[in-house]
Amino acid sequence: MKGSGRSRKTSRGGAVVLLSGGMDSATTLAIARHRGHHPLYALSISYGQRHARELLSARRVARHYGATLVTMTLPLAKVAPSALTRSDIPVPTGRSAEEIGRGIPATYVPARNTVFLSIALALAESTRAEAIYLGINAVDYSGYPDCRPEYLRAYRRMARLATRSGVERGESPRIEAPLLHMTKADIVRTGDRLGVPWELTWSCYRGGKEPCGRCDACQLRERGFREAGAARRRK
Amino acid sequence: MKGSGRSRKTSRGGAVVLLSGGMDSATTLAIARHRGHHPLYALSISYGQRHARELLSARRVARHYGATLVTMTLPLAKVAPSALTRSDIPVPTGRSAEEIGRGIPATYVPARNTVFLSIALALAESTRAEAIYLGINAVDYSGYPDCRPEYLRAYRRMARLATRSGVERGESPRIEAPLLHMTKADIVRTGDRLGVPWELTWSCYRGGKEPCGRCDACQLRERGFREAGAARRRK
Repeated sequence: MKGSGRSRKTSRGGAVVLLSGGMDSATTLAIARHRGHHPLYALSISYGQRHARELLSARRVARHYGATLVTMTLPLAKVAPSALTRSDIPVPTGRSAEEIGRGIPATYVPARNTVFLSIALALAESTRAEAIYLGINAVDYSGYPDCRPEYLRAYRRMARLATRSGVERGESPRIEAPLLHMTKADIVRTGDRLGVPWELTWSCYRGGKEPCGRCDACQLRERGFREAGAARRRK
Repeated sequence: MKGSGRSRKTSRGGAVVLLSGGMDSATTLAIARHRGHHPLYALSISYGQRHARELLSARRVARHYGATLVTMTLPLAKVAPSALTRSDIPVPTGRSAEEIGRGIPATYVPARNTVFLSIALALAESTRAEAIYLGINAVDYSGYPDCRPEYLRAYRRMARLATRSGVERGESPRIEAPLLHMTKADIVRTGDRLGVPWELTWSCYRGGKEPCGRCDACQLRERGFREAGAARRRK
């Protein structure tokens, strides 16, 4: 069996994991696998400029963990203009990790997590998965409304009422956000422990060949590795 | 000014109306316009077999009401198999209107309204619309989990926490479902009063040139007109 090299703790039912191909979602997939969920569905939703680069990372990470990759292209730019969906809105660069945490940045995509979770809910209901995992984080992304714990609680309540399994059997997929209260350094340490293949992941908000090193996502990634005391800066 | 021919009651802010091109969503758009919302965005999400036929009706109805049409193609069949997203699952036919109300039918698309509302939420947040209208109905579609009033209440709570306007100004788009407690006959009477152009709408679950007359949607449409005492059966 490929992946973390560790045995699964317990045997659990299926899970859908939202996988962007970045370090947070890769760590989330590693956690879902470590917790013993089977089968694993990695749902990769492409919606913007980084399309090709993200999809490549998502495919590699999903394969590493033996997850079935489900891809969906969603023209979100039509309804949600953002620096991440439109090329005419610049991605902010050169902000410190502290600055990134303040306010709602240009990279915020309106209702993005709500849309993503809803598509994950459809897949979870169809595959009878017992859980949906997403790598949202309330520490570094406190400026994003849909990364806050109170948002997630409200989503969970809604999801319980939205599904056939909820009506027929009083069950519905749980929404799990294991990184919610972790710092980026915590995420790196957790990922290291579970053997996350960082070299396969992609964080940069731009879709170039190499990470730009200057956008919010690159800054947070670098700070995470630095603070976690990782010996090398992984790309 | 085109449309119902009636003056607007009051002047209100913008609204996003989910428009399938069917009689329920057309009536919902008529209500939003009658209530004085401006500008109006008609959001038409194509996800299955009826794609072309629905889009044609949605385009005509949106034009009739002077709404800006926003279209989105969503490959929902990849995550949500249903008689409405896949050609290999038959659409049930010949069921009476009473039978249709019982249980969850093959035409139920997992988490469909949750996905649609979420995309509408993104558009509403982007356009600063003050409301989202959808034509769900708890009378004829009582078997669909995501057509129930308790589902809608939970969605509203979640939406208040999901948006930038909610965080920054304590406001977020209201979710309005004016047909929720109407019978099909009520909907026909309301639409008649507001001058809904029934001839432009399309209900049939199949995408043929003419409505099949036998699927659940055709049966409900016919019963609505019959019970409303409409002089002619509108197609």
